[in-house]
Amino acid sequence: MAESLNGELSACTPLELFERVNAQGDKVRALKAEKAVKDEVDAAVQLLLALKVDYKKVTGQDYKPGSPPADVPSTTNNGPVADDGSDFVDPWTVQTGSAKGVDYDKLIVRFGSSKIDKELIDRFERVTGQRPHHFLRRGIVFSHRDMNQVLDDYENKKPFYLYTGRGPSSEAMHVGHLIPFIFTKWLQEVFNVPLVIQMTDDEKYLWKDLTTEKAYQFAIENAKDIIAFGFDVNKTFIFSDLEYIGMSADFYRNVVKVQKHVTYNQVKGIFGFTDSDCIGKISFPAVQAAPSFSNSFPHIFGARKDIQCLIPCAIDQDPYFRMTRDVAPRLGYPKPALLHSTFFPALQGAQTKMSASDPNSSISLTDTPKQIKSKINKHAFSGGKDTIEEHRKYGGNCEIDVCYMYLSFFLDDDDKLEQIKQDYTSGALLTGELKKILIDTLQPMISAHQEKRKQVTDEMVKQFFTPRKLSFDF
Amino acid sequence: MAESLNGELSACTPLELFERVNAQGDKVRALKAEKAVKDEVDAAVQLLLALKVDYKKVTGQDYKPGSPPADVPSTTNNGPVADDGSDFVDPWTVQTGSAKGVDYDKLIVRFGSSKIDKELIDRFERVTGQRPHHFLRRGIVFSHRDMNQVLDDYENKKPFYLYTGRGPSSEAMHVGHLIPFIFTKWLQEVFNVPLVIQMTDDEKYLWKDLTTEKAYQFAIENAKDIIAFGFDVNKTFIFSDLEYIGMSADFYRNVVKVQKHVTYNQVKGIFGFTDSDCIGKISFPAVQAAPSFSNSFPHIFGARKDIQCLIPCAIDQDPYFRMTRDVAPRLGYPKPALLHSTFFPALQGAQTKMSASDPNSSISLTDTPKQIKSKINKHAFSGGKDTIEEHRKYGGNCEIDVCYMYLSFFLDDDDKLEQIKQDYTSGALLTGELKKILIDTLQPMISAHQEKRKQVTDEMVKQFFTPRKLSFDF
Repeated sequence: MAESLNGELSACTPLELFERVNAQGDKVRALKAEKAVKDEVDAAVQLLLALKVDYKKVTGQDYKPGSPPADVPSTTNNGPVADDGSDFVDPWTVQTGSAKGVDYDKLIVRFGSSKIDKELIDRFERVTGQRPHHFLRRGIVFSHRDMNQVLDDYENKKPFYLYTGRGPSSEAMHVGHLIPFIFTKWLQEVFNVPLVIQMTDDEKYLWKDLTTEKAYQFAIENAKDIIAFGFDVNKTFIFSDLEYIGMSADFYRNVVKVQKHVTYNQVKGIFGFTDSDCIGKISFPAVQAAPSFSNSFPHIFGARKDIQCLIPCAIDQDPYFRMTRDVAPRLGYPKPALLHSTFFPALQGAQTKMSASDPNSSISLTDTPKQIKSKINKHAFSGGKDTIEEHRKYGGNCEIDVCYMYLSFFLDDDDKLEQIKQDYTSGALLTGELKKILIDTLQPMISAHQEKRKQVTDEMVKQFFTPRKLSFDF
Repeated sequence: MAESLNGELSACTPLELFERVNAQGDKVRALKAEKAVKDEVDAAVQLLLALKVDYKKVTGQDYKPGSPPADVPSTTNNGPVADDGSDFVDPWTVQTGSAKGVDYDKLIVRFGSSKIDKELIDRFERVTGQRPHHFLRRGIVFSHRDMNQVLDDYENKKPFYLYTGRGPSSEAMHVGHLIPFIFTKWLQEVFNVPLVIQMTDDEKYLWKDLTTEKAYQFAIENAKDIIAFGFDVNKTFIFSDLEYIGMSADFYRNVVKVQKHVTYNQVKGIFGFTDSDCIGKISFPAVQAAPSFSNSFPHIFGARKDIQCLIPCAIDQDPYFRMTRDVAPRLGYPKPALLHSTFFPALQGAQTKMSASDPNSSISLTDTPKQIKSKINKHAFSGGKDTIEEHRKYGGNCEIDVCYMYLSFFLDDDDKLEQIKQDYTSGALLTGELKKILIDTLQPMISAHQEKRKQVTDEMVKQFFTPRKLSFDF
């Protein structure tokens, strides 16, 4: 009798299990159709039966083809609540039961954003004349709000600007932190627009066991990593909240304006704050909202308050900007548009995002080639099989393999990536070989970054942090 | 049979009624002892009986000498809740059922501050070599926190500074707004210490239907009234929150530090905020707390964070500073000391404080001599009797007479004030005559103020508002 697969699938949601049973059923039928060798068919059948046992265990229901588990909720709740007991997403925590990571289609429904579909990507290409970034092509930047309007603006030669940010919670950033900056830099080059980068050191002071001095220091250190990307100082303003708010009455004015138009009930609903939270946390969302309005930066935009803002960010930051978009019209400001990226998975698997506070889960931008190699070899969750024989026979699963996921972020050659996928899925490419490809990709990338970072002087940091005119006319 | 006094005493609390019965009993006994004329004794007895009827009506108990009403609560609740169904005090509302005004002794118990007693006033005189201000002598500045420590500092030649403020809710201030500034100016002269004055235009924007521009404009206009008092520009820094927070990273840093150490539960308890309040209100108390810490003003105190602050303010502002004192040690700052003044009563009576938003309740600093006269004659609640004959016979009641109360604020001649009290109480001084004394006091005072205000130039305002060194060494 078929046995349960025990621990292996315990992290799966009912719907995911249902899909795995379906897939395994398809596989068995395919093997039989192509008259595969008996051993192979038997193994596939055993796995199918084991999956059905697990499905019943988890759902309490027998598997029925075409009938997904009955209790899969489809909520439209905007709050940070896990919508089916597995996915939990808010600006501080990302947690899912699925090794494939968060279900982004469901997140789009829950957050009320729009999927970036082929039509939009095609329009992107048409309007800008540039090949869409591989983050767009591969669904890493997968969701948006009002991006069509930004493209309208661009077509009509109306100005807009980019805003992204970074919460400086430690000295060293990790590779996952690169994603919004890689994409933002690309956007800035494609559109040639001003960019503001907010370092939310005040937020990190409020949330973490840090002094304001330390949080500010982290902001400066992180900014060096950001500057090392090669952002153009003539088009980019980087600021620390703890510093800039004390330099800009216009910024503070916008913070207070947002604070007047958002109630505690609202932030409780959006961010899950409780009555025991400090009033700093409760009012902070207004500080993250303020850079969405152009008159927060009079040195760049003068008194103009009508310049559209486009925010590239990870989807977990969307709650801040849902709130901002809700408030904007009441303040007479345009709503910021958004481009959402997926999370960058932890080494241990896509159930959580990479976190700087767990060094084993992350590859730091300060890691040596040796550390990178060791971390990937030790910790990177694999979609491969346990033995080489099995792997050759059944192939690996790219959908849950962290090395493959990382390559999809950092390898911009589509053909090469597709070849890796095929080879790994077929079993031609072994887990160790896949890991080596990733190591060989990351080591030079991070070394090059470290070299560039060394060339970032304090003087350069000061330049980026100085409120000043950028090379645009508004 | 004695009848109830009906409406007249309906606003009294049980304890106040008990005290009035006591007092009336004393009066009857005194009249009998001095063998007064029968009519006078009879009238006093009639009133005593009527009071006893009212007492029973209100308390449900018979009056018993020496046994105060059973249900008088003695709560130590620090919140803004009315403690016996009559007094309600928070930073936005002052309301009492008693024509004598708020029961300040009870407020001291509820707020947990200390009464300014004869011993402290004597020490004040000894230490400073100055006669205590009539606000101190008359119990207008009636309560304090840590004033003895400030006097210790002064004796030991340790520096301290003064901090007071103003919420600029309209263009014109009224005479009640003068009280903290009259007293603060006196303190500054006596102690020769730096003074910072916070104009909370951000608060008024958050609480009122105002734009930030209007709130800032009110701050400037109100500052002109404050400057007209003759504060020394070399010793005084006046600032608008909406402007100065955007000029001082040190100030904002202290705001965020306070915000980290105060929870929503705490501000809910202290200020009575609800979940429907905007997050700006909820976080604002930290903005009013920040000036209590010397390193919020690096242009005055450098990096020193150990300089004691003394805050003269009306008692309704105490909740902000209870919170501040609670937080201070956790931030490594000294607790601010406080001197509390009573409220300045509305023209209509001491049940509420004078409010700028009700022009009939207030005498504005922009009123003409004619308006002053008309307002006092029309609206000032009188403790006199209805007819001249009755008044001559029974005399007036200074304890509830608004004109007399105002004179106790503005007439610094103790002998003259005592004479007025005796004459009014005896009936020798008629209500119209008392009103005339007040009019004759206020008209030249306000005219002189208006003259001084005219001499306040925009250049002077700019000087006061410029962050700069003051003429003290720290």
